[in-house]
Amino acid sequence: MPQKSTLNIGLLGFGTVGQGVWKHLQANSANLEQRLGGSLYLAKASTKDLSKIRSVSIPKEQLTDDPWEIVNDPQIDIVCELIGGTDLARKLTLKALEQGKTVVSANKALICEHGQEIFDIARTHQAHFFFEASVAGGIPIIKTLREGLVANRFSLIHGILNGTSNYILTRMEQEGLPLETVLADARKLGYVEADESLDLDGWDAAHKAVILTYLAHGFWADPKALTVEGIRSITPQDMSFAKKLGYKIKLLAIIENIKNSGQIAVGVHPTLIPEATILASVDDVFNGISITGDVAGTTFLVGRGAGQDATASAVISDIADAASLLLNTHQEKNAQKKAPLPIETSCKIANPEAVTSAYYFRMCAKDKPGVLAEIAEALAAHEVSVASMLQESLDKNKVALVITTHRAPESQLTQAIKHLEQLDCILEKPFFIRILDSDL
Amino acid sequence: MPQKSTLNIGLLGFGTVGQGVWKHLQANSANLEQRLGGSLYLAKASTKDLSKIRSVSIPKEQLTDDPWEIVNDPQIDIVCELIGGTDLARKLTLKALEQGKTVVSANKALICEHGQEIFDIARTHQAHFFFEASVAGGIPIIKTLREGLVANRFSLIHGILNGTSNYILTRMEQEGLPLETVLADARKLGYVEADESLDLDGWDAAHKAVILTYLAHGFWADPKALTVEGIRSITPQDMSFAKKLGYKIKLLAIIENIKNSGQIAVGVHPTLIPEATILASVDDVFNGISITGDVAGTTFLVGRGAGQDATASAVISDIADAASLLLNTHQEKNAQKKAPLPIETSCKIANPEAVTSAYYFRMCAKDKPGVLAEIAEALAAHEVSVASMLQESLDKNKVALVITTHRAPESQLTQAIKHLEQLDCILEKPFFIRILDSDL
Repeated sequence: MPQKSTLNIGLLGFGTVGQGVWKHLQANSANLEQRLGGSLYLAKASTKDLSKIRSVSIPKEQLTDDPWEIVNDPQIDIVCELIGGTDLARKLTLKALEQGKTVVSANKALICEHGQEIFDIARTHQAHFFFEASVAGGIPIIKTLREGLVANRFSLIHGILNGTSNYILTRMEQEGLPLETVLADARKLGYVEADESLDLDGWDAAHKAVILTYLAHGFWADPKALTVEGIRSITPQDMSFAKKLGYKIKLLAIIENIKNSGQIAVGVHPTLIPEATILASVDDVFNGISITGDVAGTTFLVGRGAGQDATASAVISDIADAASLLLNTHQEKNAQKKAPLPIETSCKIANPEAVTSAYYFRMCAKDKPGVLAEIAEALAAHEVSVASMLQESLDKNKVALVITTHRAPESQLTQAIKHLEQLDCILEKPFFIRILDSDL
Repeated sequence: MPQKSTLNIGLLGFGTVGQGVWKHLQANSANLEQRLGGSLYLAKASTKDLSKIRSVSIPKEQLTDDPWEIVNDPQIDIVCELIGGTDLARKLTLKALEQGKTVVSANKALICEHGQEIFDIARTHQAHFFFEASVAGGIPIIKTLREGLVANRFSLIHGILNGTSNYILTRMEQEGLPLETVLADARKLGYVEADESLDLDGWDAAHKAVILTYLAHGFWADPKALTVEGIRSITPQDMSFAKKLGYKIKLLAIIENIKNSGQIAVGVHPTLIPEATILASVDDVFNGISITGDVAGTTFLVGRGAGQDATASAVISDIADAASLLLNTHQEKNAQKKAPLPIETSCKIANPEAVTSAYYFRMCAKDKPGVLAEIAEALAAHEVSVASMLQESLDKNKVALVITTHRAPESQLTQAIKHLEQLDCILEKPFFIRILDSDL
């Protein structure tokens, strides 16, 4: 095959991220090209609306409203899929890979839902598929799991993978505001996805957790099999109770290898973490991931998870990786060679009911003698043991009661909650949040 | 050239790290080999003392007391240099590279002193040189700077790069102990290098800072041109003053690109950092690095910096990187292609006198009216302006006085200190620590 000295790059999608890639790749191209020993040429970008005025303007003839024109162009070597969605994006991605093109993707939903198919097609056609921008843009987490920590088997990976919900929780905690107020600000700032459920109900983080689970444990988890809970029920009162107990509340994705079981517990849910931990200090729109491996111990990565620039940084690093494979070398089709993917395993998702955790319960109860004894008895009946208790008067007859427990399986938790709901002294359905205690 | 399906690995040095590499590579080899598509064979290790009893035992015929036997063995593909030192290690490294072998190095002092020569020889002989283990073992910082954040130019890199001094400072801060007491414990735990100056006077961190400076800015700094100060003068009193001011004291390496000057300020010194920052929560033997790039913003990496396992993890990731280049591919001699090194630049180390910082002064002064005015006047004479003041009675006639200042160039600081020393009311040479205020 001919040696390449120039790589032609096409962008599918010219919105926020596409413009960021174009802008930063152009600004930095001299340096990158010298390093890589060849040219990177931004050949074309596709957009739905050719007439739209953009902050990054490019020559008319390089903009098209037909993404297939890019995918089918034999001159294009690297296709960056930045349009999002799982329908057209899937078709374009597969078509590009089938032609042996390198695809760089920022599309977590697509990879989460169709990862198996995408990697199979890439393997069959000896094409490269890079996806650093799909999880926590400013943090090289994909590269770290695939390469930097390749010597490790991972007992626990947990972190804050959604910047918008972290922004909301941070302001709720620091300013004592209710969720709705901060959410309104987040909307104004353009932080919230059009489908708000992605940010508020944990689905965006769940998509990313599926990708990290694949990299760490070699199988594609069905997102519907995961425990996914969002932040909508968190109140300023929870924030202040958590603080009194020495915790902060963060929306965490948790990927836990249940020892010697071949089962991986994967969940996304609000979690109380000790306020002295590094993850607890990851505030605002920042993402943070803690990775515990059997060789390196625990490594933390913190950075910007989304936004034009952080995502562009990840896309450009993938382009550079692709370039060092494609430029000036015989195009040995050694796909997936450079950064080997995990070996497929027979691991599977653990039954959520079997997963254990400590818990925080918030209850509204009658303010009368004997209530605490009744509650403690109900918990004890399901072998859930109390670690601490806090209460706060609400009015003459009601108290807000918070109880933390030691570790217990979720199945017992479910039973205990049902039991509590039946008590006369409990006035509303008890609300619970999981607690993660770690060393750091 | 023939295609390889097995790579033979030789270890120079079979101490703590060498044994860790052997142990973990063996334990994880099935998984790694499947991923990489070829075999990794631990062929031989060299040691000074063949008769020593080790926790990892290997067949007698695979152990040699002659490291040259490994370097000159044509069957060996990858040489891991783990003996340390800059004399024999340099000769062995260069000889291996001259034969086109891949060298994996954990030797920060060697790279710091002879990096230019090593990379030149590697380039000439189209050999690979990997060095992830040379800086912060459990943190993939080399890969992150070379690849993950390749789209960025770096305005500021700063961090805790020496675990031993961080352990000492952490215990001083948390337990109010003097340095000597904690140092004695650290010695017992085997945390302190034989040459204690490496840990206590900042030189170990300085070696690492030189390597990061090369990766970020493309030139080899002369370690002697850097500001390097250790932790020996820090007292429990400084810890408690810092706490009152909202800071923690950490030994930081700081690599700052002085805007539009082509000059890079590189220093290692104790530094006051706001206690709410992520770096401030990096305690004990952990390392932590903050990287601010023009595209990705600020990214933090935290993990174990040293020790058998963390270092082995980094060495094995380099072996895996080498393997994906060497296994089953035509051995295109595309050295430094995969993870391109920085382009050499004409940047140079900034004159330390021109670097600006805010400062913390601790002084012992006479307890009499007018002292503060005298001190403030002396500082003002050199355009150093006071930000805050704290004092504590020492005995009837003496006070410990702490003053923090706004940013000023070091040249003015030097003048101001000389001036202060001449004041009658100042009883001992003033001690100062730099302050770094950052957003995060």
